[in-house]
Amino acid sequence: MTTKITYFETHDIRFPTSLTGDGTDAMNTDCDYSSAYVTIHTDSGLIGHGMTFTIGRGTDIVCHAIRELAGRLIGRDPESFFENMGKAWDWMCSDSQLRWIGPEKGVIHLATAAVNNALWDMFARARGKPLWKLIVDMTPEELVNATAFRYITDVLTREEALEMLEAKEAGKREREALVTKVGYPAYITSAGWLGYSDEKVSRLTKEALASGFNHFKMKVGADVKDDLRRGKMIRSIIDDPANYPSGFKDPSSPELAGKNAGPTGAVLMIDANQVWDVPQAIEYVTGLAEIKPWFIEEPTAPDDALGHAAIRRALKPYGIGVATGEHAHNRMVFKQLFQAEAIDVCQIDSCRLAGVSEVLSVLLMAAKFGVPVCPHAGGVGLCEYVIHLSVIDYVAISGTMERNVLEFADHLHEHFPYRCTMNERGRYNVPSNPKEGYSIEMYKESIAEFEWPNGSYWVGARGGKKLST
Amino acid sequence: MTTKITYFETHDIRFPTSLTGDGTDAMNTDCDYSSAYVTIHTDSGLIGHGMTFTIGRGTDIVCHAIRELAGRLIGRDPESFFENMGKAWDWMCSDSQLRWIGPEKGVIHLATAAVNNALWDMFARARGKPLWKLIVDMTPEELVNATAFRYITDVLTREEALEMLEAKEAGKREREALVTKVGYPAYITSAGWLGYSDEKVSRLTKEALASGFNHFKMKVGADVKDDLRRGKMIRSIIDDPANYPSGFKDPSSPELAGKNAGPTGAVLMIDANQVWDVPQAIEYVTGLAEIKPWFIEEPTAPDDALGHAAIRRALKPYGIGVATGEHAHNRMVFKQLFQAEAIDVCQIDSCRLAGVSEVLSVLLMAAKFGVPVCPHAGGVGLCEYVIHLSVIDYVAISGTMERNVLEFADHLHEHFPYRCTMNERGRYNVPSNPKEGYSIEMYKESIAEFEWPNGSYWVGARGGKKLST
Repeated sequence: MTTKITYFETHDIRFPTSLTGDGTDAMNTDCDYSSAYVTIHTDSGLIGHGMTFTIGRGTDIVCHAIRELAGRLIGRDPESFFENMGKAWDWMCSDSQLRWIGPEKGVIHLATAAVNNALWDMFARARGKPLWKLIVDMTPEELVNATAFRYITDVLTREEALEMLEAKEAGKREREALVTKVGYPAYITSAGWLGYSDEKVSRLTKEALASGFNHFKMKVGADVKDDLRRGKMIRSIIDDPANYPSGFKDPSSPELAGKNAGPTGAVLMIDANQVWDVPQAIEYVTGLAEIKPWFIEEPTAPDDALGHAAIRRALKPYGIGVATGEHAHNRMVFKQLFQAEAIDVCQIDSCRLAGVSEVLSVLLMAAKFGVPVCPHAGGVGLCEYVIHLSVIDYVAISGTMERNVLEFADHLHEHFPYRCTMNERGRYNVPSNPKEGYSIEMYKESIAEFEWPNGSYWVGARGGKKLST
Repeated sequence: MTTKITYFETHDIRFPTSLTGDGTDAMNTDCDYSSAYVTIHTDSGLIGHGMTFTIGRGTDIVCHAIRELAGRLIGRDPESFFENMGKAWDWMCSDSQLRWIGPEKGVIHLATAAVNNALWDMFARARGKPLWKLIVDMTPEELVNATAFRYITDVLTREEALEMLEAKEAGKREREALVTKVGYPAYITSAGWLGYSDEKVSRLTKEALASGFNHFKMKVGADVKDDLRRGKMIRSIIDDPANYPSGFKDPSSPELAGKNAGPTGAVLMIDANQVWDVPQAIEYVTGLAEIKPWFIEEPTAPDDALGHAAIRRALKPYGIGVATGEHAHNRMVFKQLFQAEAIDVCQIDSCRLAGVSEVLSVLLMAAKFGVPVCPHAGGVGLCEYVIHLSVIDYVAISGTMERNVLEFADHLHEHFPYRCTMNERGRYNVPSNPKEGYSIEMYKESIAEFEWPNGSYWVGARGGKKLST
């Protein structure tokens, strides 16, 4: 007897993070970290969870789109998807009427991400493996079949991808063993939000150093003088050997090459969250050269590959690189970022790209172009997702984690039974529970508390008054 | 006493065009031409209508987003927007939480288009002018203030735009008089849909010739042999002097230069609606060189500026150009299409770009780069919108309509009291009613009949059964 997908549920879950200043930057001044969440059910009891990350208002619009897309799965046998997840992905993106309101971007693509990730979560659970393990255990041909290739074959064909993956087969088991043992390198954003006081930034930076981190990211873009002042303050902490409890890195080590590391090997990154036009970006960042950032993240509109390329060329003499990708909405944008040599670091987002199948196509292109992938994380659920993607990249695709650091922010992990964890060296532990799938299952209690608008938290915040939806 | 915006209404209106094969192409096989419609009301009785064009499922999602965006207008004085529509546009795009689910693309941008256009419609009605007239009567400074400039100043600054507009001031009144007299040149798409039989294509092509058209567009991409056969059939009709009731154009005239015109001066265009990857596009279109198309429209993913540039370079030796833009989702995509020299013809969409203010920025960039603008039309409501935009382009911005042709399709105009009309030479008449604003008001009866799911047409189609929403 075959299994059938029988129903799904969506939830609009919003956490009141705007109250604490978490997530504030030059563009996003009042984030309520949110999740457009979906659970897909089958008649066999097998389930799959997925979500897209949002920041408050509009989460209901994404849930609306998820209902349209998930509705297409009802009555289907999940195994018919699992046997070729690339085909399943093409099919999920191909309802011509729904495609029109993207295509492959914005709300409909964010919703596709939630549903595609839920299907991948279900696939991994069905095989009793964490998602990363499901994928690194695939043959090169199976992995290629699971990947989205439409519109990128001018830079990467299936045949070329197959060759790349076959070339990486040899060391896979050694790499898997190593990353499982030492963890995946990370950097921390939590310290550098614009909404935090100097005292809080200073304290969090010192705590992060004590936890083993040596890459730090600071938000910039509201005021260049203030950014320079805050940057110097952070630099004075991370460049001071006295703040390192257990030694520090040789700044000339291969791992730090090209990262503008300070005397202790500490690396500083800056993030503007798209506030500038191209000429402004060049002028502003040049004014911050003194604090030696490794890269400026999101200097301008995320769609502007040629703009990023111009900024990168202008900042090269200062040793400052360019990173972007958390708002790059599909593989075609990344294709152009690579073709135009616009970025030093590729920051994929696990649910702005439409799920694992499209992420695989970007990981493959990044490996071809030799650009390190440092996924976007933080928010809610993103850290849980992205450790899987970085382990896949290291074990099966790029074969390296020397140049890479995976974003980490210590927020909201308590809502996930299979939450991400860090080891004592400031690195992500590799997920290992055979039941955790893509690690994105959320506690029912958390959903009941933070569902918008009538979860117990929000009703309480309104003095007990429910809102009709 | 000031006026206030007091409430708005949205309507999900779907026309059952999939029953007749209207709108079928290689990508869109079952279009129900639809409108996500909004009317904004004030306490003075002044109203504004706007819409976004969609093709069926998903229109409800766009209406959901319109409600979020239009809700922000309640309580505001419309005059406070009218005094600087560029600032109003920036404000409409700047709710940071809603911005996240774009940004500036997909559902939220389509919805912004409907609301921005409604505000422009209200502005024109308040001044007792059709929209195009409101704008061509602006001073260069007022027009620049009405334009969206964020993220494009690396190719076009306000100062540069001001100079361009000032240089065009001199001939404005003459151009206005001329276009009002002779109409704006058009081409016809209605003849070439994939879903039509040969007999119907042949009949419609002859009818179009008799109506004065000499530019024709054919859909391609499902099967190269069949496309070649249909193309030759259309060519045999439009290249035959016997089919011209009243003479035909000298094919070497300046107006037809670079358009691959046939012996009668007739021009054929082909449209693939994004079905190919870049290498496929080049191979397929080369195989259609025999029918001498002026351009291939939408050969690949609309986000792929560099892909379009590669296709254009490859097709140049065949005299075939590249056109795109109906799915180019914001001014940054057009900026890159211009920078990469990717297109011969710029096909803006009046409601995929987020309304008039963003359209103005693309018209200005196109004029700077010397690329003719031939807006996307057809569907429902698009012809009503775009004649305004082309007249603005001709009178105030590019100063030329020699190279241009505006798309026309003879569908669904009967639902608009201020519908577009064509003159006897196959050209658009210029809207002239002081009450028509942006010409997009729809009959209440049409809304009542085609509103989804419980308009009288749809209830009738279900044998009288209403659907709960």
